[in-house]
Amino acid sequence: MDVTLPRLSALRFADGALWALDQTALPWVQSELELRDPAAVSDAIRRLSIRGAPLIGVAAGYGLALGLEHDPSDAGLREAALMLRQARPTAVNLAGALEFVAGAVGALPEAERAAAALRAARSLHAQQEAASETLAGHGADLLRGARTVLTHCNTGALAAPGAGTALAVLAEKFARGTLDGVIATESRPLLQGARLTIWELGRLGIPHELVVDSAAAGLIASGGIDAVIVGADRIAACGDVANKVGTYGLALAAREAGIPFVVAAPISTIDPSCPDGGAIEIEERPAQEILTAGGQPVAPAGTRCRNPAFDITPAPLITAIVTERGLACPPTQEALEGLLFG
Amino acid sequence: MDVTLPRLSALRFADGALWALDQTALPWVQSELELRDPAAVSDAIRRLSIRGAPLIGVAAGYGLALGLEHDPSDAGLREAALMLRQARPTAVNLAGALEFVAGAVGALPEAERAAAALRAARSLHAQQEAASETLAGHGADLLRGARTVLTHCNTGALAAPGAGTALAVLAEKFARGTLDGVIATESRPLLQGARLTIWELGRLGIPHELVVDSAAAGLIASGGIDAVIVGADRIAACGDVANKVGTYGLALAAREAGIPFVVAAPISTIDPSCPDGGAIEIEERPAQEILTAGGQPVAPAGTRCRNPAFDITPAPLITAIVTERGLACPPTQEALEGLLFG
Repeated sequence: MDVTLPRLSALRFADGALWALDQTALPWVQSELELRDPAAVSDAIRRLSIRGAPLIGVAAGYGLALGLEHDPSDAGLREAALMLRQARPTAVNLAGALEFVAGAVGALPEAERAAAALRAARSLHAQQEAASETLAGHGADLLRGARTVLTHCNTGALAAPGAGTALAVLAEKFARGTLDGVIATESRPLLQGARLTIWELGRLGIPHELVVDSAAAGLIASGGIDAVIVGADRIAACGDVANKVGTYGLALAAREAGIPFVVAAPISTIDPSCPDGGAIEIEERPAQEILTAGGQPVAPAGTRCRNPAFDITPAPLITAIVTERGLACPPTQEALEGLLFG
Repeated sequence: MDVTLPRLSALRFADGALWALDQTALPWVQSELELRDPAAVSDAIRRLSIRGAPLIGVAAGYGLALGLEHDPSDAGLREAALMLRQARPTAVNLAGALEFVAGAVGALPEAERAAAALRAARSLHAQQEAASETLAGHGADLLRGARTVLTHCNTGALAAPGAGTALAVLAEKFARGTLDGVIATESRPLLQGARLTIWELGRLGIPHELVVDSAAAGLIASGGIDAVIVGADRIAACGDVANKVGTYGLALAAREAGIPFVVAAPISTIDPSCPDGGAIEIEERPAQEILTAGGQPVAPAGTRCRNPAFDITPAPLITAIVTERGLACPPTQEALEGLLFG
């Protein structure tokens, strides 16, 4: 149990820099990266030192503010935004945060832009923290009867401001006394479940067990798991969800077992301009992530790999999408539009 | 490409010992274990130095012969058989091979038992090699239209005598020119796909790509995979199949995508005394297998794990079971009884 970080802060802005807990080193080493320009922020996102759709959005917002500190011109703004946007393609929160921060500074004189961008980034950060708390309550209401819940990848305080998304729901359920324990998947290739979720569950004092990804479907079928809850990287207008690779298989297993399959994500994860899952770009990451585990080779060098970081879960497999504005249950286009624009 | 082992021999009996390729060290180190008594054989099976349902059956048969060499009494026979049977619980081939070899020696004078047991073990070995070749042809006939096939875990020459089971079907398809390539899952926790199947596919010259286990369902859904083929550790009378953990999830994804899901296994894998999947004991293996990968820690030490080595795929999800006596397609109890007793 960690004693130096009683409250987990994955990102903080102080002394003119963005400080980010280096998630590639967790749980073995707890160290902060000091990021002072958009290139450093973009690189930290690309390397997954900063990860989780809502968190990379906020980080990109701060990155844009750091860029305007160096170069507040229109060209500087465009260049910084492009560099940050290209860090990762799938999570819509990143593009959304850049638009939000850029929108707050676009009309201002250059001398005022950096400060305005920082205010906007801080406001986004605070807004996402509040969203986490509110959606956690809605999710805990929805899943009040689920005593044992399976989750995938990492969706806690390391993935989103505040207490996170799906893991925030579980933490809220635990606080309410309606959760007995969590089954966490390891989430190959980069093991965000084994490294990060297990570490967060330990800090929160929530009983938990770790499984390899491929064990989840069989465990769901054999009973004893009451619900599955995951986060999201992008939600299409029709309710299809892009999330960590492996999510789709969990949704199939949940439907077959007749248990709820719930997605928890802030409104910023919904992309109304994207009609369906087929229109979402799925990031393909380097083969090296698969060819090693814990830094050791686990397959013959040079083996060709397919390494999609995400997959698409069609809306009909999803019981509900939980946001800070309430539920889309079932997650139809109409229900999502109600949350977005209603 | 390996030049010292042009023909892969996972097991051979010579000079009064069973020589087994140590599969825990592959593909990095190719070394043979010299096993001279049932305890050594049992231990090699338990540690997965020898693995794959048909192969551990044959190894156990040789192990019993080695035991009778030391102690040909009825008590010695019982003790050796018990030790070997307890090595792993799920694969029925192990118990079946022990019964076959014990049955060949039970009535003989003690002085003749060791030689008779060795003859029986050699005969079983040869019979399983022939079964591999025959079932490969049946499987290649069935899947003649599948150009790209996904497979799970390792089912080649390292898992069964001869060319294996599911991988033997793929090798036969490749030889016939009806296979473009194979997608292989890594098969956590012990990475038999990444380490062993990739190595075998490389030796065979079959084009292949490696994926993490949880990527398989999404790849199947996105098209481009024409069939899934796996092996089996035990097939119940009703057609339910126990196989490497993760198999069930692949079957759900295959059904959803409308592609064939095929199980390839010798008749020795069918257990008519087991009514259905619920009656099959699923081996739970040590947490340490999950907490490490490639020998490195990948989760906080002491994390509680669930580590079932197998899961159950219900018969209705299976397109066909391919054996050396032909197909059970679909794999109903009647069809399986026809293969067993017809």
